[in-house]
Amino acid sequence: MAQKPSLPQGTRDFGPLTVQRRKYILNAIETVFKKYGFMPLETPSMEQLSTLTGKYGEEGDQLLYKIINSGNYLDKLVEYNEKGLGQENEDTTFLPSVDGSLRNLDAKKALPFIAEKGLRYDLTVPFARYVVMNRNDITLPFKRYQMQAVWRADKPQKGRYREFWQCDADVIGSNSLLNEAELLKMYDEVFSILQIPVSIKINNRKLLSALAKYIGAADKFMGITVAIDKLDKIGMEGVKTILEKIGLNQDQCDAVLKFLALSKDPAALPKIEAMLGHLEEGALGCTELAKLFAFLKTLNTQNQIQIDVTLARGLSYYTGAIVEVQANAGSLTSSIGGGGRYDNLTDIFGLPGISGVGISFGLDRIYDVMEDLNLFPETLRANETKILFCYFDEATQLRALELCASVRTKGIAAEIYPDVTKKISKQLEYANKLKINYACIIGSNEMETGKYNLKNLISGEQREVSQEDLTQIAY
Amino acid sequence: MAQKPSLPQGTRDFGPLTVQRRKYILNAIETVFKKYGFMPLETPSMEQLSTLTGKYGEEGDQLLYKIINSGNYLDKLVEYNEKGLGQENEDTTFLPSVDGSLRNLDAKKALPFIAEKGLRYDLTVPFARYVVMNRNDITLPFKRYQMQAVWRADKPQKGRYREFWQCDADVIGSNSLLNEAELLKMYDEVFSILQIPVSIKINNRKLLSALAKYIGAADKFMGITVAIDKLDKIGMEGVKTILEKIGLNQDQCDAVLKFLALSKDPAALPKIEAMLGHLEEGALGCTELAKLFAFLKTLNTQNQIQIDVTLARGLSYYTGAIVEVQANAGSLTSSIGGGGRYDNLTDIFGLPGISGVGISFGLDRIYDVMEDLNLFPETLRANETKILFCYFDEATQLRALELCASVRTKGIAAEIYPDVTKKISKQLEYANKLKINYACIIGSNEMETGKYNLKNLISGEQREVSQEDLTQIAY
Repeated sequence: MAQKPSLPQGTRDFGPLTVQRRKYILNAIETVFKKYGFMPLETPSMEQLSTLTGKYGEEGDQLLYKIINSGNYLDKLVEYNEKGLGQENEDTTFLPSVDGSLRNLDAKKALPFIAEKGLRYDLTVPFARYVVMNRNDITLPFKRYQMQAVWRADKPQKGRYREFWQCDADVIGSNSLLNEAELLKMYDEVFSILQIPVSIKINNRKLLSALAKYIGAADKFMGITVAIDKLDKIGMEGVKTILEKIGLNQDQCDAVLKFLALSKDPAALPKIEAMLGHLEEGALGCTELAKLFAFLKTLNTQNQIQIDVTLARGLSYYTGAIVEVQANAGSLTSSIGGGGRYDNLTDIFGLPGISGVGISFGLDRIYDVMEDLNLFPETLRANETKILFCYFDEATQLRALELCASVRTKGIAAEIYPDVTKKISKQLEYANKLKINYACIIGSNEMETGKYNLKNLISGEQREVSQEDLTQIAY
Repeated sequence: MAQKPSLPQGTRDFGPLTVQRRKYILNAIETVFKKYGFMPLETPSMEQLSTLTGKYGEEGDQLLYKIINSGNYLDKLVEYNEKGLGQENEDTTFLPSVDGSLRNLDAKKALPFIAEKGLRYDLTVPFARYVVMNRNDITLPFKRYQMQAVWRADKPQKGRYREFWQCDADVIGSNSLLNEAELLKMYDEVFSILQIPVSIKINNRKLLSALAKYIGAADKFMGITVAIDKLDKIGMEGVKTILEKIGLNQDQCDAVLKFLALSKDPAALPKIEAMLGHLEEGALGCTELAKLFAFLKTLNTQNQIQIDVTLARGLSYYTGAIVEVQANAGSLTSSIGGGGRYDNLTDIFGLPGISGVGISFGLDRIYDVMEDLNLFPETLRANETKILFCYFDEATQLRALELCASVRTKGIAAEIYPDVTKKISKQLEYANKLKINYACIIGSNEMETGKYNLKNLISGEQREVSQEDLTQIAY
């Protein structure tokens, strides 16, 4: 019996018009990446689980898609378990199944024996792995871009998919803040091309670190950062509740909230300096922000770029600048881009001392925002066909094919209706449905005279043309 | 301790130059696809295993990459097994583990409970699924192209990867042989652009079907096809051995070999017709081939397109024309493209009566052939940067940044060396390693005069230019 096919939850087909629109966005991003000297990299969809695990926190590990080993995937699991069971005094706590039963098989312990590969979760960890594996062939500073799908077994919801695309640009092997400035300018340029009004927010992790020291809670830095990161969703009161929960006293909480209140201040920098400038990291954070803005002035950005001290970003590997982009219009307020500087990303793969900074564009969210704001150019169509050749019978079909071929030699996208048995009205219906602008109908008269009727299907205008004319018209 | 990272077997990183070269091939293929009116489609990397299983033969099922269910992936397996074990008189032969032990867990039976998704194996089955799911929104004939990765857990070897790209163009909903002709012309055009000398071989499954009837072995059609498909590897004697094994007698074998001997005949068609023309399918196969060549003559193909009666192609769903492309030069003789007509592909998903025909380009094999034949344009570089701005200190850095920004406003790819502390020689070394052609060095003198030194790093030639000159040079 025929099966009714379906798609895995959280995944999507992209039909012709959608692909063209996605390509429109990708093209805008890639054009800017290349203009700033970034070089393309592509890594495999599958990585060793050992490469991925432990890089995205415990929650991230849960969201990794794991691929079952090829061949008899149970053999390793059974063998390991049996060996343990066979030995005397074996410590059974480390066995996937303490008594060899399926019921007591521990899913987490069993996993490494049945799955060694996973789908990539982001583009940053594969990039770090690539850098370490190719360290001898890479010229530093290395500016790479990467535009590929990533997969997360997250609960699907509006704007969140299980397969989605990231477009990353990173510079590694350079400490210069010029990189941060150029990356911010690239955000500015891409969103100007796409005509999405955006807020680009920047902060510096060093300020958050100084803040933690300032209130005498340096040991709670990550906890404070995670709390601040939730401000958008839970508000000041919510943040305060979390801060209390992780053990801050009233004075400490008040100081954090006072700091966060600076986010609405257009001249925040001197006030931040007054508060944290006496601490080494505070002074450094302020100097870095000031320098960054000096570069940005030279680069002449179009969109609003503002310091937002409440910007924290969840990822633990950021150590300097952090940045986030939000659309300023429409109903979709979630982040459409983000990034920052990291100093230790390649350490875990055995290559310390490489600093990097990067930004990421979320293709799927940008798409959703553009659709919401009706920003896709009207000229984007499912196909690029300029003209359809129609005909009546086998003789006129051959002439139509000849004309179609000669138009194509000029690089013009053209089609000939394939089936000889269809009526002209059916052929024109095909052209209309596909929004092809021109039709050329070949009858026996036209074959004799060598003069063909070219019809503009939108205006209805008709004109008589020769074969040569057909190849020279600006369709 | 730092881990030493590695890649899963059979997968590859593509560094900047490799990506540019792959894009060069993809771009040639896509340009032709679009010129012939094909529209892009993209389907998810993951499909339901129910969509994929049973479509590629038993061997194909083995080669599917399966993804472990999210959450506690063992729960369903244990629950099903326990239910069975708990019921009286339960037929334990259908349980994943007949006695509830890990040792007796049947890998094949357990699989559907722990994995419901798999990675796509080709682009044809996902396309058929898409057509069936979107049948009401699709205008027929539907011409779609799709250029995406596919995954097969095959034994890696030269030219065979576990993640590789296919570029497919298919027309569905039209029986016209004009489609076959245009698809063959597309092969012809793409390989002309890429300058790969190729042999395009065509055959018709109807002839093989007629041959089976002719020798009185219609029931052994697929067996005979599979044997013929192996001719390249095992020779005539090898084919004969297989034919004997599947039960053909001496006369039958001789007739098949006599038919196969026609492959070297430049005027094979009348001889095939003499042999098989009295059978309905034989006559039809010959008529179709003759008509196809008439269309091809009008389309004016450049590469050799020849009938090869020994072409069988393994896939069982082909029903009419079959085609295969091989490089005519170099050491890599395996197929770099193939396709054919299928009449029943959407049947299995509940949509009968849709005929289709398609071709596929194997990106990775085409890449290997082009590398082997040294066919990539010399102009392809890892990046597209035309000019690097160099400087001495913080003051000259700002001017360099300003100049770099003004060059970029003209769409010219430009870079500024990011770190202020490096010597000029270090900066020029960066330009040389990245094969950037021009360098512009900004000193305090240049800042004062507004005249900058532009150096061609290949010819060594130097000239004095203004800021405006810099934006107008043809780099």
